[in-house]
Amino acid sequence: MRLGALEAGGTKMVCAVGNEHGEIVDRISIPTETPEITVPKLISYFAEKEIEALGIGCFGPIDLNRNSKTYGCITTTPKLAWKNYNMAGTFKEALHIPVGFDTDVNGSALGEATWGITKGLENSMYITVGTGVGAGIIANGKVLHGMLHPEGGHLLLAKHPKDTFEGTCPYHKNCLEGLAAGPAIEARWGKKGFELADRSEVWELEAYYIAQALVDYIMVLSPQRIVLGGGVMHQEHLLPLVREEVKRQLAGYIETTELDHIEQYIVLPSLNDNQGIMGALKLGLDEYQLEKIG
Amino acid sequence: MRLGALEAGGTKMVCAVGNEHGEIVDRISIPTETPEITVPKLISYFAEKEIEALGIGCFGPIDLNRNSKTYGCITTTPKLAWKNYNMAGTFKEALHIPVGFDTDVNGSALGEATWGITKGLENSMYITVGTGVGAGIIANGKVLHGMLHPEGGHLLLAKHPKDTFEGTCPYHKNCLEGLAAGPAIEARWGKKGFELADRSEVWELEAYYIAQALVDYIMVLSPQRIVLGGGVMHQEHLLPLVREEVKRQLAGYIETTELDHIEQYIVLPSLNDNQGIMGALKLGLDEYQLEKIG
Repeated sequence: MRLGALEAGGTKMVCAVGNEHGEIVDRISIPTETPEITVPKLISYFAEKEIEALGIGCFGPIDLNRNSKTYGCITTTPKLAWKNYNMAGTFKEALHIPVGFDTDVNGSALGEATWGITKGLENSMYITVGTGVGAGIIANGKVLHGMLHPEGGHLLLAKHPKDTFEGTCPYHKNCLEGLAAGPAIEARWGKKGFELADRSEVWELEAYYIAQALVDYIMVLSPQRIVLGGGVMHQEHLLPLVREEVKRQLAGYIETTELDHIEQYIVLPSLNDNQGIMGALKLGLDEYQLEKIG
Repeated sequence: MRLGALEAGGTKMVCAVGNEHGEIVDRISIPTETPEITVPKLISYFAEKEIEALGIGCFGPIDLNRNSKTYGCITTTPKLAWKNYNMAGTFKEALHIPVGFDTDVNGSALGEATWGITKGLENSMYITVGTGVGAGIIANGKVLHGMLHPEGGHLLLAKHPKDTFEGTCPYHKNCLEGLAAGPAIEARWGKKGFELADRSEVWELEAYYIAQALVDYIMVLSPQRIVLGGGVMHQEHLLPLVREEVKRQLAGYIETTELDHIEQYIVLPSLNDNQGIMGALKLGLDEYQLEKIG
């Protein structure tokens, strides 16, 4: 069957057509401007593709509560043009097909869990460390929403004793995103991450914060595997540092087979940066099955 | 139907008989000594009660992986006499009935979710702050195990700038349990919690750490309600401080109806300290249904 997928990000919208096997047959990318400018372009792309359902992985925060009047809307985002925009509802009304809707990182977590490196695991996580930090979670076999949805990038962390940087998050002085996302690296060191590739102190500190967050995720969620994606993880020397630092900070408190093989436990994405768009396909497929089959 | 329930703690074993409605008809408490001394007493209690299944909520860490050779065992506990003890297997062999097995705090989370204040919610948490700190989690409608099981007491926290106390945890200098459990209060202030009831600085610091952990749980899990139990929470002035401090540390980043009514969001247990033993009944019931009905 033909499925549409939309990865809705703050800077670009990736639209694709694929099928229930996760195969993508067409794709375009459109810059994110205002809903008035951008959404008609997205709708006209999908309208002529004869898709039977659409899945949307969307930047947040978003309302995922199906009993809520604002289900399917973007809520308190700092991208003001999109604040309170009814994302799922607009596409459902325009295309007359089932529209699945979740966070962008839950989409990536679902993509990896359906066709990638966390396939077959009931409990896994996908974390992106880039312009922001986000966490998507599969718990007991399903994407996790709860009261709202995970906001794992705003986990509060202990500052490194030598780090005097104040953090970039306007809400929290010591959250993961504010201390370790791309903009925090640039603000702390005065250069972009890729320009700092040979500065070991940059990546040791980065590993310290990412690892501390991973330790906390392990203590709370006990995922069976953790996937670390996003632009910052393109620094290839970072992942081994994170693994080492996770072991150091766990300090032997938890002993599992998974942690004994940490290079298979904390891993990079496996779907060639298609995890998000493939996850959106699965969101569309799941919504189709929910509406048509029940 | 008649169900057995065992709440296995480090200082005492609570045994009860009840039914599938959570009603308890008989109960005894036996001190926790070694398995050789204690377990025969537990077995002889249950053996004559004509129960059809037994549920055990057990101190940990424990092995909950049904595919593991050591499923049902206590694993790396500092209570050395119980290390590697096959808890579930011993009772199953002696009583020839289905034996459900989970952590003590998952048991309490399940008790509250089945008959208490989190009934009907797909996502909730039960946290105990007492001699130790533990977290039980219901995620997507089921108790959460994952790779091992949650160890939420060992969440790493940012120290309060004025707190010079080193923490009591032998593994982590700044985990929740080491900074905020009963023994940490006593070690930091030189007196037990109940002797410090009128010292506001004690409870402000305690609220600071518990609230920080709750903020992190909210960022990761997004529970629909959080139940705070355990001996430390018997200080009645603590809960309002925790609620205030959660709001302060969240700093408005997350806006939900639940957080707007925080006195209904962060709550005390509702089952008169029977949440653990009632949860164990439910563990027994669930295992019976799994084995007999499938």
